[in-house]
Amino acid sequence: MPKPAMWQSIYQQLNQSIAEGAFAVGERLPTEAALAQRFGANRHTVRRALTALQEEGVVFSRRGAGTFVAERSTVYRLGKRTRLRQGIGRLSEQVGLTILYSETRPAKPKEAQKLALEEDALVHLIEGVRDLEGQPIGMFQHCYPAERMPNLPEVMKQSASVTEALTAVGIVDYERAETIIGADIADATKASLLACQVGGALLRTRSVDVDNNGKPIAYGQAWFVGNRLELEVSGL
Amino acid sequence: MPKPAMWQSIYQQLNQSIAEGAFAVGERLPTEAALAQRFGANRHTVRRALTALQEEGVVFSRRGAGTFVAERSTVYRLGKRTRLRQGIGRLSEQVGLTILYSETRPAKPKEAQKLALEEDALVHLIEGVRDLEGQPIGMFQHCYPAERMPNLPEVMKQSASVTEALTAVGIVDYERAETIIGADIADATKASLLACQVGGALLRTRSVDVDNNGKPIAYGQAWFVGNRLELEVSGL
Repeated sequence: MPKPAMWQSIYQQLNQSIAEGAFAVGERLPTEAALAQRFGANRHTVRRALTALQEEGVVFSRRGAGTFVAERSTVYRLGKRTRLRQGIGRLSEQVGLTILYSETRPAKPKEAQKLALEEDALVHLIEGVRDLEGQPIGMFQHCYPAERMPNLPEVMKQSASVTEALTAVGIVDYERAETIIGADIADATKASLLACQVGGALLRTRSVDVDNNGKPIAYGQAWFVGNRLELEVSGL
Repeated sequence: MPKPAMWQSIYQQLNQSIAEGAFAVGERLPTEAALAQRFGANRHTVRRALTALQEEGVVFSRRGAGTFVAERSTVYRLGKRTRLRQGIGRLSEQVGLTILYSETRPAKPKEAQKLALEEDALVHLIEGVRDLEGQPIGMFQHCYPAERMPNLPEVMKQSASVTEALTAVGIVDYERAETIIGADIADATKASLLACQVGGALLRTRSVDVDNNGKPIAYGQAWFVGNRLELEVSGL
């Protein structure tokens, strides 16, 4: 492989410095002039490296204010045994769960259909927020069949994860049967819960989980902050 | 299964009428009073059915103006042999392709990495819009290795689909190796190309396709209008 061009070398060094945390999220990078001096390059070359970083979402620039380190999104790998804590790899220990709300009520038509319940069978609606290293990354509204797991809401409030709560009520294993991914805009409520901007982009998933016998155990929606989390799909 | 409650029956009938096109997208439904009369139910019951339809995104209401039929999104099923025209099933014949722009230039660092090319190897950047029944559903910016398929840009402009163009330049089969899904906000350019609102939600995919030998043949991003298309992931 040929020697990389000067701008590529600057790109790589800056990219690595940012990845290693030498510059924090939101921090302003040194000026083009300062970077040019540091790397012994001209400003045009530095600008080419910064443009490449910007196109990849590593930095962003504000006219007249400079170039800043962007929020890096976490990639959450969707698999058959989808668990948020497992999907994000090394960060899994940093995921927290807060239950915001729960109620037990008759299933709505779509809920009854997706959970294979009779219409008007009772479901637990549970809403919660997941955070990563203290920053909210997503919220969910899930329905669970209430007859099968009557005390799930109480158990969930005391659990560190959804999986832990399900295990405690006898669902020892489950699989993701279906995920439909869409995009939404954050309204005031979601923005407040997710500590993101009103009008910001959210990834939305609608999903069904099933137990070992293929019986649905959870159906619901989740929203993830677009610039904090991405979903990876591979091995289809 | 017990007889459905009155509101569920109204819900089902309205849902079916809308699905069958008895009410068009954007059309106002009859008033609650008119629906109550038609179904021989009270307004409270009708409202419960409308609320369920609204929660599922089938209709939306504007205060003081009434209830309207929402845009129905198309579900695009992601699989290993991902082809937009196949992924959306029966609608596949209605997908159109318009190439907006192409250029041949040295690969940027990320492009070179994803396509397993030497840095500064030439790539074709091709931008296009896909529409469904005449309505734009998504746009893409894809890079292809230029040395391997020198005349791809010209071929693509005359093809009905990306797959057809790739076949014509000798890529007889390919697979989706990786898809990373995020969410973006439509800026003025994307809103104009996609005929959607500035500030609207877009699904963004970053993907790599590989040939039969596992060699990357395409890398790039695509954006889909959030309320027109959703991505389904199953069989992981």
